Amino acid sequence: MKKVFMVISALFALAASGAAHSYDWQPLPTTAPAPANNPTTRAKVELGKALYFDPRISSTGTVSCNSCHNVMEGGDDSRPNSMGVNGQTGGRGAPTVWNAAFHATQFWDGRASSLEAQAIGPMTNPIEMGMKNHDLVMQRVAKMAAYKTMFNAAFGNQQMTIDQAAKAIAAYERTLITPNSAYDQYVKGNKSALNKQQQKGMALFAEVGCVSCHSGAAFNGQSGLPMGTLMLMKFPTFTDNAYVKKYNLAADKGRENVTGKAADNNMFRIPTLRNIALTAPYFHTGTVRTLDEAVKVMAKTQLNKDLKKSEVADIVAFLNALTGPFPKQVMPRLPVTPGESVVVD
Amino acid sequence: MKKVFMVISALFALAASGAAHSYDWQPLPTTAPAPANNPTTRAKVELGKALYFDPRISSTGTVSCNSCHNVMEGGDDSRPNSMGVNGQTGGRGAPTVWNAAFHATQFWDGRASSLEAQAIGPMTNPIEMGMKNHDLVMQRVAKMAAYKTMFNAAFGNQQMTIDQAAKAIAAYERTLITPNSAYDQYVKGNKSALNKQQQKGMALFAEVGCVSCHSGAAFNGQSGLPMGTLMLMKFPTFTDNAYVKKYNLAADKGRENVTGKAADNNMFRIPTLRNIALTAPYFHTGTVRTLDEAVKVMAKTQLNKDLKKSEVADIVAFLNALTGPFPKQVMPRLPVTPGESVVVD
Repeated sequence: MKKVFMVISALFALAASGAAHSYDWQPLPTTAPAPANNPTTRAKVELGKALYFDPRISSTGTVSCNSCHNVMEGGDDSRPNSMGVNGQTGGRGAPTVWNAAFHATQFWDGRASSLEAQAIGPMTNPIEMGMKNHDLVMQRVAKMAAYKTMFNAAFGNQQMTIDQAAKAIAAYERTLITPNSAYDQYVKGNKSALNKQQQKGMALFAEVGCVSCHSGAAFNGQSGLPMGTLMLMKFPTFTDNAYVKKYNLAADKGRENVTGKAADNNMFRIPTLRNIALTAPYFHTGTVRTLDEAVKVMAKTQLNKDLKKSEVADIVAFLNALTGPFPKQVMPRLPVTPGESVVVD
Repeated sequence: MKKVFMVISALFALAASGAAHSYDWQPLPTTAPAPANNPTTRAKVELGKALYFDPRISSTGTVSCNSCHNVMEGGDDSRPNSMGVNGQTGGRGAPTVWNAAFHATQFWDGRASSLEAQAIGPMTNPIEMGMKNHDLVMQRVAKMAAYKTMFNAAFGNQQMTIDQAAKAIAAYERTLITPNSAYDQYVKGNKSALNKQQQKGMALFAEVGCVSCHSGAAFNGQSGLPMGTLMLMKFPTFTDNAYVKKYNLAADKGRENVTGKAADNNMFRIPTLRNIALTAPYFHTGTVRTLDEAVKVMAKTQLNKDLKKSEVADIVAFLNALTGPFPKQVMPRLPVTPGESVVVD
């Protein structure tokens, strides 16, 4: 993972300049970037989709990628924290899978440098999918004849490695993008795509300084950066307010848990704001129930600003313009092992 | 529920006559029967599908109808017993949703007289979807604007009652049928649809006496019977064999748990054999791992017969001809509550 910390202070300077009208509003690209060693192909996407929806690659047979990153919803699970095998819960909320392809790193702490690296993590996390190791994952997959055919179509062989599984899941996830929101239509020239309040909220979003971190096409400060580029921010930055205690915002050490360095305390990847209206409750803590409150908390803890009620409403109206539309999804038929279950070992 | 117990002895007589060639093999109808008060409409099916896939009508937001009755698989969950909210497990395996519309009653003990009556049971079962009551289910549903539109389209009003939800889910389930299996093609005249072994297994299936219970188009003794007609069978019938203990077949009192009558001990609804190859592990106990073993167990415990290995293989080959094909399913977009989660109360 390239350790290129972006110069946060420079971004603050941009925000401080209040260049709302000159801000470079970008539409989302209509295809997601893919690494040179994993070009997106139809065969990989089909395989990846089956794996993504297959709960049988969890220890209990009950948890698939889609369980916590539900593509039929906002790409997450509507919960403060996610629930894995045997009802276990983790410490953070599930980030959305929608437009994750436009993040330069994955997980809240950026510990995976690609979708490929992320995809296989939860499989062997004891409180997520709970498989003992990736060999056991692939042993289950290999038992199902249709997977052999699909791996062959996707990779020209039937080796069926965990790396191939990761590539296929990542390829599917790169199709989970929402490039034609009202906002995108607006910045492409359709001036009636946003109503007056949304336009007002959009200007305010830049003026207040939200764009100092939530910049670029995916509103995450990192779309377009080389894959693996760490784009982190301290959250909470300003701690002298009631929100930090009320919502338990400072307890999670964030990136420090990965590096062991005090300088990484409370450092988190900047999440996309695409479809943010559909991913309540908010933040890595999942402790903030509504988007209105989340906007207030962000303004105070990150910019040390107290927004008026009408300003919050305007920004939320704008954020609602970042929702969808979602591409139609056909359900996969999951491969089978006639006459026996791969879950029962 | 009409308490019409079919005369089992008459069925045994049919089997005993060994009328294999004269047996009335029936293809599955291409539409499922619907009750007069709930005709299947497109709007109801769309609403029902959304509700069926919506995990937010479970207490934890993690369990939908599809969690245990996965339409992307064999209509069940590949597990011995199902796992509900907070990792809790029940005492029986999930019956398949595929072709459940051809059962005259629902649940292993036939305690629901219709798909409508069944659909809402798990929602308030503490170890399944765990909602405290149906009012709370419908309060969550009512918060999501798109559901209002869908209820209106389906029922001409926005009352959004649990009965309407039940009707919609049942309407969707009536589309989950597999009428064009290799077996169906064969009995409709395509004599090459089954290979020699499958044809041999088919004849054997009748001769051995499997058809004494697993009769009719859905191989459940009840397709075509008036809705609510109880069609139960004692399982195990013959208990003087090693299987009963080995697989713990007699512990569950079955229908007796519903009626309190000793005569109903170990009485269960006859499950469909459609897609049986995809619903391992087997029986209400989920204790039998493979279809081969399940066929042997059935022959011994229900007909007191010891099948040869080749006979088992032939019957299993035939049972594999009862699989699919499965209609293409487009994923629903689940209704949303922008800016907040209905799961977090």
